[in-house]
Amino acid sequence: MGPFAASYILLVASAVRAFQYTELAQYVDSHQEEYVEALRDWVAVESDSSNVLKRSELNRMMEMVAQKLRQMGGTVELVDVGEQELPDGSTLALPKVATAQFGSDPNKRTVCVYGHVDVQPAKLEDGWATEPYNLTDINGNLYGRGASDNKAPVLAWIHAVAAYQALSMELPVNVKFLIEGMEETGSNGLDAMILAQRDTFFSDVDYIIISDCGWLSRRPALTYGTRGNCYFYAEVEGPKQDLHSGVYGGAVIEPMIDLIGILDTLISPSGKILIPGIREAVAPLSDEEWKMYQDIQFDMDNYRNKVGVSQLMYNNKVDLLAHLWRYPTVSIHGIEGAFSDPGTKTVIPAKVTAKFSIRQVPNMDPAAVKKQVTDYLHSVFAKRKSPNKLKVTMVIGAKPWLADTQHALYEAGKAAVKRVFQMDPDLIREGGTIPVARTFQDVTGKSIIMMPIGGFDDGLHSQNEKISRYNYIEGTKLFIAYLNEVSQITIQNKDI
Amino acid sequence: MGPFAASYILLVASAVRAFQYTELAQYVDSHQEEYVEALRDWVAVESDSSNVLKRSELNRMMEMVAQKLRQMGGTVELVDVGEQELPDGSTLALPKVATAQFGSDPNKRTVCVYGHVDVQPAKLEDGWATEPYNLTDINGNLYGRGASDNKAPVLAWIHAVAAYQALSMELPVNVKFLIEGMEETGSNGLDAMILAQRDTFFSDVDYIIISDCGWLSRRPALTYGTRGNCYFYAEVEGPKQDLHSGVYGGAVIEPMIDLIGILDTLISPSGKILIPGIREAVAPLSDEEWKMYQDIQFDMDNYRNKVGVSQLMYNNKVDLLAHLWRYPTVSIHGIEGAFSDPGTKTVIPAKVTAKFSIRQVPNMDPAAVKKQVTDYLHSVFAKRKSPNKLKVTMVIGAKPWLADTQHALYEAGKAAVKRVFQMDPDLIREGGTIPVARTFQDVTGKSIIMMPIGGFDDGLHSQNEKISRYNYIEGTKLFIAYLNEVSQITIQNKDI
Repeated sequence: MGPFAASYILLVASAVRAFQYTELAQYVDSHQEEYVEALRDWVAVESDSSNVLKRSELNRMMEMVAQKLRQMGGTVELVDVGEQELPDGSTLALPKVATAQFGSDPNKRTVCVYGHVDVQPAKLEDGWATEPYNLTDINGNLYGRGASDNKAPVLAWIHAVAAYQALSMELPVNVKFLIEGMEETGSNGLDAMILAQRDTFFSDVDYIIISDCGWLSRRPALTYGTRGNCYFYAEVEGPKQDLHSGVYGGAVIEPMIDLIGILDTLISPSGKILIPGIREAVAPLSDEEWKMYQDIQFDMDNYRNKVGVSQLMYNNKVDLLAHLWRYPTVSIHGIEGAFSDPGTKTVIPAKVTAKFSIRQVPNMDPAAVKKQVTDYLHSVFAKRKSPNKLKVTMVIGAKPWLADTQHALYEAGKAAVKRVFQMDPDLIREGGTIPVARTFQDVTGKSIIMMPIGGFDDGLHSQNEKISRYNYIEGTKLFIAYLNEVSQITIQNKDI
Repeated sequence: MGPFAASYILLVASAVRAFQYTELAQYVDSHQEEYVEALRDWVAVESDSSNVLKRSELNRMMEMVAQKLRQMGGTVELVDVGEQELPDGSTLALPKVATAQFGSDPNKRTVCVYGHVDVQPAKLEDGWATEPYNLTDINGNLYGRGASDNKAPVLAWIHAVAAYQALSMELPVNVKFLIEGMEETGSNGLDAMILAQRDTFFSDVDYIIISDCGWLSRRPALTYGTRGNCYFYAEVEGPKQDLHSGVYGGAVIEPMIDLIGILDTLISPSGKILIPGIREAVAPLSDEEWKMYQDIQFDMDNYRNKVGVSQLMYNNKVDLLAHLWRYPTVSIHGIEGAFSDPGTKTVIPAKVTAKFSIRQVPNMDPAAVKKQVTDYLHSVFAKRKSPNKLKVTMVIGAKPWLADTQHALYEAGKAAVKRVFQMDPDLIREGGTIPVARTFQDVTGKSIIMMPIGGFDDGLHSQNEKISRYNYIEGTKLFIAYLNEVSQITIQNKDI
């Protein structure tokens, strides 16, 4: 049980300041089109952090964020977080991190909203129905790369603060922003920045709020855990250049065949991870947890239909949710360097690099996983007696995160959800990774809540990513309500 | 032993017409720059037959071929060979096939030169040092996609005929051309066209000459066999769209993992094909053949260094040559639909299609191979008990070809090589595939010779494809000399 839970008292009726939710909500409704236009402007920027050729777009995106926050009168900084090293040994400046502050009243609690404005890669030819960087409204869904992950939620937070300002209402808490541009590739540079500013920017922060995930169904949700992610490159290099497979086929040990051979040893057809040590590290499932999963409303058939498969990996709710939230898994994303276009090409690729990742859960440790995977792949590769060269690199190593659902932050979240949606939220975990959550926890010691507004079917990282107008606009109201709820905790517990 | 070998007599000294080789060779030397410019014009056309979006370029290429042959006074036709069906069920017109005729003297033998002007895909970012469609001369090597395969050899044949014309010398034989634009994707439409014109265009053809391969070393070569090729797509389809690997990883049986699992069952690390029935069909290696391979000058160390590997699949010459020329092999070219760009992307691809091919040798039959591969992959896939869907398609099924090296055509070839290069040629086979060779043999019953002029290190299908000026220009002289040699056979054997 969290430190504030016992003393949390819902004080809406007797709040020091009356909370004028209705006016704020009406303001949001009447500015809906303006919010959609703001999202259109942001989605139009191809801020793909994984592609170094798009770095100037990403830098432009960070400037746009800073500019918006400055226009609202915030104290804004674009913080230099250094350089990243590229695989060829050269270096590239990381996008700056935007920080902002609205209010510094020592009698109020201070929240820090974290978000990111970089996106995953997207191309029309991947199978998008619309141009990925041209926000397109179809039946109330706003399609575009980054719409849900994470540009609309960041804007919703900004608009929540702006709504208080526009109606000349005092912000119930001090609000800080921390907006970065490298989340999709592992929040490069952010950990060091948080550590460096622990005693400055973060010193007066009481709570950290993250809205970088989605609901489980049409019911709003609060998220209390995320998986981490260890992302690997396995590169097999053979001949000095690609070879004609007719002219050379049979003479050379093909790197692609070696690579497929070792990839095939990562996970069994039934989903069992075969890398020694990985499964052993996972915290056992408690009876309490089992019960909690059992109680969650989750329609397996609906989920299966949404995914579009005839059979899921597990056919009961608890096993499925447990394997989405609290067990690791291996995904093989693709192979760089082999022939990947339509048509036929008769080539023996000279150097091929598989990209795969392993989701992390308590009590796995990315440093240990790195060694386990590297040692294992080298050992299975050695058995092939191939003259080709294997290189295994872990390029992302993000830890999992888990919160206490009894904490007052979550009680406040439930109240805000109830006010806006007239229902209780699901308490869920998230299979995806928000690398910074664990860092916040470890470095600042502050409590964190994840309050998603993304829909369950938003297609993050996929073709046709979208956010619905409903989630975007009601989500803005949720954030407005939440700031008030947090202020109620604060009043009771400022000195605890 | 071929029908004409015993009666072949080298008649150069006493030829009916004196053969003015020196004048022709001088003419070629003095027009070298013009020939390079002609190649530059052809290489500039991105006539990639595997990419349907480049079809208009391919059609333009065929028009350029026809135009060039017309300007030389040939009787030229562009033959409609129908349509191809695309994977989505739609159809696309095939590029026309160019035929041409120079001379129709019934007292002369008639040769038909086959070549192609389509190319394999190439992009600068694949690792080319120069723009692939901008012919670039570096130290006497002419770099560009299609330079060696097969644009320069086709031009060399055209220039050989043109040289006779320019010097007002009578062509010693009637020369026909058959130039196509779909060779790189399996000569779609050509088989039916050859069958349809068997009793018209091909009725007076005595010999077919193909120059669509390369030498084994710096020594000129004549080629008496090629491997065929069966090219497969193995598509595994699962969810209805790509999924975020954090959000869905663990819940779905990933198509990429299924695909890798079945690809890993095709061939062992030591090169043994694991598909039942494939190895059993291969004609056994005879003692005579072993001896022939043993006698070929072939520098294993040089070859290994050229390929750029520390170890080849076999470490003795006979095994290596046998596995390049007369044993099948499996190459896995790549996977379409998975993440293949630089950087990190955390996606579960929904539909992935592996491209792999199996080289064909006597006595394999593509129809049988299609069934063997399809049945085998479905059986290994069934063992995985995956809900995903597997579809196996054979998109190219080209048979191998083998000639009699004692045939008079080869004797004439040896004489021509000796005249131009003052040495004997290697008699070699070719690991690559020239699909039409087997068709010519089966449909027309005519004898075929393969007379390569490509260098051993031309990088066909790879980055930095090139042909040397030396091979291009001396190759043109070889073709000039060969036309004369063939006419000598003719005189002796017209009525046999």
